[in-house]
Amino acid sequence: MSDKIKTPKGFKSSGIFSGIKENDKLDLGLIFSEYPTVCTAAFTTNQVKAAPVRLSKKHLRRSDIRAVIVNSGNANACNGKRGDEDALSMARCAADSLGIKPWQVFICSTGIIGYPLPIDKIRNAAPSLATSLRVSGWKNFSKAIMTSDSVPKVATSQIVFGNKKITITGSAKGSGMIAPNMATMLAFIVTDAAITPSDLKMATRMAVDESFNSISVDGDMSTNDTVMVMANGAANNSVLKKDSKNLSRFTGALKKVMLNLSKQLVKDGEGVTKFVTIEVNGAASIKDARKVSKAVSESSLVKCSWNGSDPNWGRVIDAVGYSGAKIKEEKVDIFFGKFAGAIGGVVASTPIERLKKEVSKEEFTLRIELNLGDGSHRLFTSDLSEEYVAFNRLEYALKIQGH
Amino acid sequence: MSDKIKTPKGFKSSGIFSGIKENDKLDLGLIFSEYPTVCTAAFTTNQVKAAPVRLSKKHLRRSDIRAVIVNSGNANACNGKRGDEDALSMARCAADSLGIKPWQVFICSTGIIGYPLPIDKIRNAAPSLATSLRVSGWKNFSKAIMTSDSVPKVATSQIVFGNKKITITGSAKGSGMIAPNMATMLAFIVTDAAITPSDLKMATRMAVDESFNSISVDGDMSTNDTVMVMANGAANNSVLKKDSKNLSRFTGALKKVMLNLSKQLVKDGEGVTKFVTIEVNGAASIKDARKVSKAVSESSLVKCSWNGSDPNWGRVIDAVGYSGAKIKEEKVDIFFGKFAGAIGGVVASTPIERLKKEVSKEEFTLRIELNLGDGSHRLFTSDLSEEYVAFNRLEYALKIQGH
Repeated sequence: MSDKIKTPKGFKSSGIFSGIKENDKLDLGLIFSEYPTVCTAAFTTNQVKAAPVRLSKKHLRRSDIRAVIVNSGNANACNGKRGDEDALSMARCAADSLGIKPWQVFICSTGIIGYPLPIDKIRNAAPSLATSLRVSGWKNFSKAIMTSDSVPKVATSQIVFGNKKITITGSAKGSGMIAPNMATMLAFIVTDAAITPSDLKMATRMAVDESFNSISVDGDMSTNDTVMVMANGAANNSVLKKDSKNLSRFTGALKKVMLNLSKQLVKDGEGVTKFVTIEVNGAASIKDARKVSKAVSESSLVKCSWNGSDPNWGRVIDAVGYSGAKIKEEKVDIFFGKFAGAIGGVVASTPIERLKKEVSKEEFTLRIELNLGDGSHRLFTSDLSEEYVAFNRLEYALKIQGH
Repeated sequence: MSDKIKTPKGFKSSGIFSGIKENDKLDLGLIFSEYPTVCTAAFTTNQVKAAPVRLSKKHLRRSDIRAVIVNSGNANACNGKRGDEDALSMARCAADSLGIKPWQVFICSTGIIGYPLPIDKIRNAAPSLATSLRVSGWKNFSKAIMTSDSVPKVATSQIVFGNKKITITGSAKGSGMIAPNMATMLAFIVTDAAITPSDLKMATRMAVDESFNSISVDGDMSTNDTVMVMANGAANNSVLKKDSKNLSRFTGALKKVMLNLSKQLVKDGEGVTKFVTIEVNGAASIKDARKVSKAVSESSLVKCSWNGSDPNWGRVIDAVGYSGAKIKEEKVDIFFGKFAGAIGGVVASTPIERLKKEVSKEEFTLRIELNLGDGSHRLFTSDLSEEYVAFNRLEYALKIQGH
């Protein structure tokens, strides 16, 4: 994480220790906008949704979000009615200490599933959380949302419209239960751009699709995943116009921030030793290209082979074959970096040592050409290591509480 | 494996070392029926199909299968035209040494994908493979089809119709790439029952559905999976009648053999330390029940928790939520053995130590009650261990060749 975090105008943030985690680890974060915002979010598609997800969806519909409160160490998922009450209490205590209404607060929780939220600790900590708000508080906020992450994840992008500089800054946390379509992660992106709600929504959807919805660590999709974007217009640019060049520049910058955060999430995934970009081209449709990237990225056998730096294209074509996408075996080409492992579904002439060299790199690209149509998809994923298993065989509750 | 393998009448088998594997490991197997047979098979649904799968399908259509030849150590998959030619050569050399026609031979290969089959070795070994045929040869056959299996897998069942004793004996190999819908495995079941082709087909379909199609080790589905059943009528029972009690007894016995082999496959799965039965009840449909058992059995996080004897129902309900099946979170009950981990989507009162004791067992049942309808499914699966990763990060080619 860069030490020079650029915070968009009109935003303050903080992160403190409230006692949910142990060992004084930051576990409660807050973002506050001094100005009214437009706000949008993408949520988990898991049918089991955590209480804060349900409540934030509701608050989002009323618009006028001014603050985000997030706790780590407990997901407040699968806690029934009590979970709903606790999420509401969390919104209330944040609102009280900020002098706003509860429905102006966006709520997130992350951590273990199925244990009641220690709401008293959050309630007690809320006032000092609010008084800790600083323009320079983003780093503490980023730390407070971490669970099994080893480092906080921040990204910034700036663009200039005439004489107005616009800043987009985001923070994200992983790092297990990462799969396409809102994996286990939270991401908060704030900007001082002036933009309409519908354009922010559209820009977010486009950017999420190619970033957070295109990463996979373990293929598990969590109950709490949320990406939220908040824009407060404090940069004083003239409101971005629909279909304008400036709007597409903004969307590009937003995508850049999200892509940057997404890659950080994969690289810091549990037990990850390899960062692999899967490029699928020539599929009959984009949907088919996504099926292929998903099947390959979720194959334990493929992921284990990467861990061992083995350019095993046989396992890759096997996963391509059961992905559900239309394929013709005799047309499938598989490349490790620039080097062909298989051409037309059979072994290529590249010396195996050359392929091994490619897969031995910490970062490499696996390119799969189906040669059927125009559908493409790019997905970022990781290997599967003994360390992943060693980490996840332990009790999650104990780990994230720092025992 | 029991030392007392009961071979159905009129079958002989053998297994020898042909030089595909190293260290004198048996790698070529043969089954021969002295009498004409009815034969049926279920194949991989992977769109990438190995050459022997394509050829066996063709031969099966002509009926009159009299022999099965199987090599291990090389899958003859993804070898293009040469693969097809080699599969045909394999059928030919088996036919020549048995004095039958090539289309009377069923062909299987298992092992590494994408390397040409050493067909000369098979051709050279075919005559001695045929002269090695014995009524007592089943054990060697079972060994010759092994790849990463640690033990050969055999099961037998006998039933008596009047004064005629019928024997059903099968052999299977795993043990990676095991997923529902024809996972990576081969299974060969022979019986001396007299049965019509259509009834054998139906009985096989029913038995496969609840056995080989209901197991999962790593969720990968291979290019070569095959279950074949051959009946030669040598028991001299009167041909089983459609919808008769005797036919359903036969189907039951066939299912028993397949279920027994399936469980052996899971238990001998790569790096497996836990054998877990997932029971899903109360789903809106059987299809939904299958979606849930599949999602849970393929969740790396769930499988890691089992490895650590952690009764982590939160990860289970998370997978239930993204399975794609219709669910209502507040109706989901989750049991480890007889003990509730969650009732109505929230934590149950069972002491955690009691649940841990259950998950610490080498074999336990995870029961998921959706309380929505009548759909049920039972699936057999395993944990995910560091040993699995350690095994599969190594080059497959080297492993199975015994380096």
